Amino acid sequence: MNDSLSDHEALHKGMPQTGNRLLADVSLPAAVIHEPALAHNLAWMQRFCEDHGARLAPHGKTTMCPELFHRQLAAGAWGITLATASQCRAAFHHGVNRLMLANQLVGEANMAIVAGLIEAGADFYCVVDSARNVDQLARYFTARDLRLKVLIELGVPGGRCGCRDTDEVMALAERIDSEQALVLSGLEGYEGVVHGGDPERAVRAYAWQLVEAAQALERDALIESPQPLITASGSAWYDLIAGVFREARLGSQFVPVLRPGCYVVHDHGIYRQAQREVLARRPELERGLKPALEVYAQVISLPEPGLAIVGMGKRDVGHDQMPEPLRRYREGDERLHPLSVEGWQLTKLMDQHAFVRLPEEDEEPANGNGRVRVGDIVAFGVSHPCLTFDKWRRLCRVDERLEVVEVMQTCF
Amino acid sequence: MNDSLSDHEALHKGMPQTGNRLLADVSLPAAVIHEPALAHNLAWMQRFCEDHGARLAPHGKTTMCPELFHRQLAAGAWGITLATASQCRAAFHHGVNRLMLANQLVGEANMAIVAGLIEAGADFYCVVDSARNVDQLARYFTARDLRLKVLIELGVPGGRCGCRDTDEVMALAERIDSEQALVLSGLEGYEGVVHGGDPERAVRAYAWQLVEAAQALERDALIESPQPLITASGSAWYDLIAGVFREARLGSQFVPVLRPGCYVVHDHGIYRQAQREVLARRPELERGLKPALEVYAQVISLPEPGLAIVGMGKRDVGHDQMPEPLRRYREGDERLHPLSVEGWQLTKLMDQHAFVRLPEEDEEPANGNGRVRVGDIVAFGVSHPCLTFDKWRRLCRVDERLEVVEVMQTCF
Repeated sequence: MNDSLSDHEALHKGMPQTGNRLLADVSLPAAVIHEPALAHNLAWMQRFCEDHGARLAPHGKTTMCPELFHRQLAAGAWGITLATASQCRAAFHHGVNRLMLANQLVGEANMAIVAGLIEAGADFYCVVDSARNVDQLARYFTARDLRLKVLIELGVPGGRCGCRDTDEVMALAERIDSEQALVLSGLEGYEGVVHGGDPERAVRAYAWQLVEAAQALERDALIESPQPLITASGSAWYDLIAGVFREARLGSQFVPVLRPGCYVVHDHGIYRQAQREVLARRPELERGLKPALEVYAQVISLPEPGLAIVGMGKRDVGHDQMPEPLRRYREGDERLHPLSVEGWQLTKLMDQHAFVRLPEEDEEPANGNGRVRVGDIVAFGVSHPCLTFDKWRRLCRVDERLEVVEVMQTCF
Repeated sequence: MNDSLSDHEALHKGMPQTGNRLLADVSLPAAVIHEPALAHNLAWMQRFCEDHGARLAPHGKTTMCPELFHRQLAAGAWGITLATASQCRAAFHHGVNRLMLANQLVGEANMAIVAGLIEAGADFYCVVDSARNVDQLARYFTARDLRLKVLIELGVPGGRCGCRDTDEVMALAERIDSEQALVLSGLEGYEGVVHGGDPERAVRAYAWQLVEAAQALERDALIESPQPLITASGSAWYDLIAGVFREARLGSQFVPVLRPGCYVVHDHGIYRQAQREVLARRPELERGLKPALEVYAQVISLPEPGLAIVGMGKRDVGHDQMPEPLRRYREGDERLHPLSVEGWQLTKLMDQHAFVRLPEEDEEPANGNGRVRVGDIVAFGVSHPCLTFDKWRRLCRVDERLEVVEVMQTCF
């Protein structure tokens, strides 16, 4: 695929090629995925889901990277979750056949995209939470002579989308039942917007609420799909959701589907912390996920004592949390000898620049660790991945020798 | 160009087409540029620069949109400013011949990009602020048998890149003078990182410091270029920089070059405030810049009283400052009748969702203004533009009838 890039595409930032050495040949800044950690994460989450009797439909909005979708499917994923109709179209075009839009499908232009995918053979699901949207979807898909599989979203008061209680779910199910164009296919939720004094208890309670609402739908024979789904889970609480779904023994009634997205490259910040909590709750889970995504950039100026300016900014990296300097290399170093960044602190990001405070010893003459120089390459850990991926049209997948083994494209 | 889009490119979010009606045919969310405001801004800033005897080299990193570069050049811009070697390559590929990299050129992979541009005929400038970078550049461009035009960057203590005083500038100029491969071509600064109790006074003082350092370089015959440049100015203080450059009567010695970027689509937040201050300082400047960039998105859920969830998130819009709801339309309304968003407040952005608090009356039965519905389209004002453009591969340029007259691509 990389050989057939058009001229236009070849001009986006980075433009690395397979075989490039990250420390010598690649225009920096560049976003980097480490293959060993990636392979570990793909296998780890797949096994986690299988051990819990759940299917995995990774949230693809995290990466919007078809090559990663293919890796996820090859590892055993059941489908790919997405957040918008446009994202579904991009995934389908790149060979993903089972698509879960974990979001409302609103607007005729977006419905037209989805109708096209269904006509082309996609196995497509989306969610609904309002009578008006049910009516809009029924009108549109009836006119197109298509049937649309929908899941009802159950949310929480003060949360994001979704019905606020089981009564609303049941009323909406009756309305869907009356529309020939719509096929009620299960229940959807997202525990990431649940809040409460004890978040763990609140997430578990929400998971049970999902189970009970799903069972109520089935009891009243409102579910039309022969293989209905029950689905929830982002990247922080998947163990609790999977645990409740397993305890509820839903296997024969519902297919449980988990939808974490960030796991694939994990994280150096908020989800690493979430992962520590998962492992504390579930000590039987051996070795957790490994951070696989880094951004490499160069020191471009050392204008005064204690300050390094690095050529990386908000254009290059997610900044819900400040990127973390991990290691430093001398440009071109073929031994890949990591130099210290101890005490380095990223204090400010502008659009294209990062300000790094250096400890005093970095201003002293060279020692064994290598005093910082203009041109030094710094590897940064990032958080969270969704808002880093969307800043790159292509990322470098590298092996242990920091050689580019694949240039991965994104489809934002 | 839009007709020849490859399949792959046709799949990125939005995917609008010329002739689409924004309120009916375009998959939302979409980024929108209003032609009347755009045309006004292009002419306004060009005239401002000409009135001050300065050249305009708009910062292209704001938009990275070749169609906008062409509009800026057609309006009379002298060249395009950029922030990275990759950006310079993209601009040159799209027909921009005069490129100012207002940043350090660091790393052999980046130098290789620039060497290629110079060999292909680009009129290229970059900045330097360290002896080590001078040595790196001299070594690389000597080996390539090319000459590189450089400007010395003068910064401020506690600022970003740049020499910290005139002595450092002079010492660096001597070093450049000794390198055959480097052509000292002027002085560069960026007043956006100047700080002090009275920012206006601090920016003017800094502008005078630039003038004096430039004159010192000329006095000592350290400038090699026959047409040396003096350049500064972002999008907030350009009037002060232009004013000092005009007062200094540099015309015969130096070509003054201003580099604002955001002006082209202006802003609904921080730069609108900056513009108010420009007009307060300079009342003779008639009617200032007009905000031209908006993001359109749909209400996807009204899950509880007082809350609307809109299908737009951090993936779609800059969020240094919260987007501002401006107007609302009913989907498909051919009369383009704007409905009220009075009292609407965007309180939270997630990756793909915005939370909007609604005033009480929006929960009451329909009134003349039109009660909010799932599917309603909301136009949001954004701040600042740089971090909105980089979230889109294509933007819709629309006319007064909200019809798409051009699909503008970006090259991030």
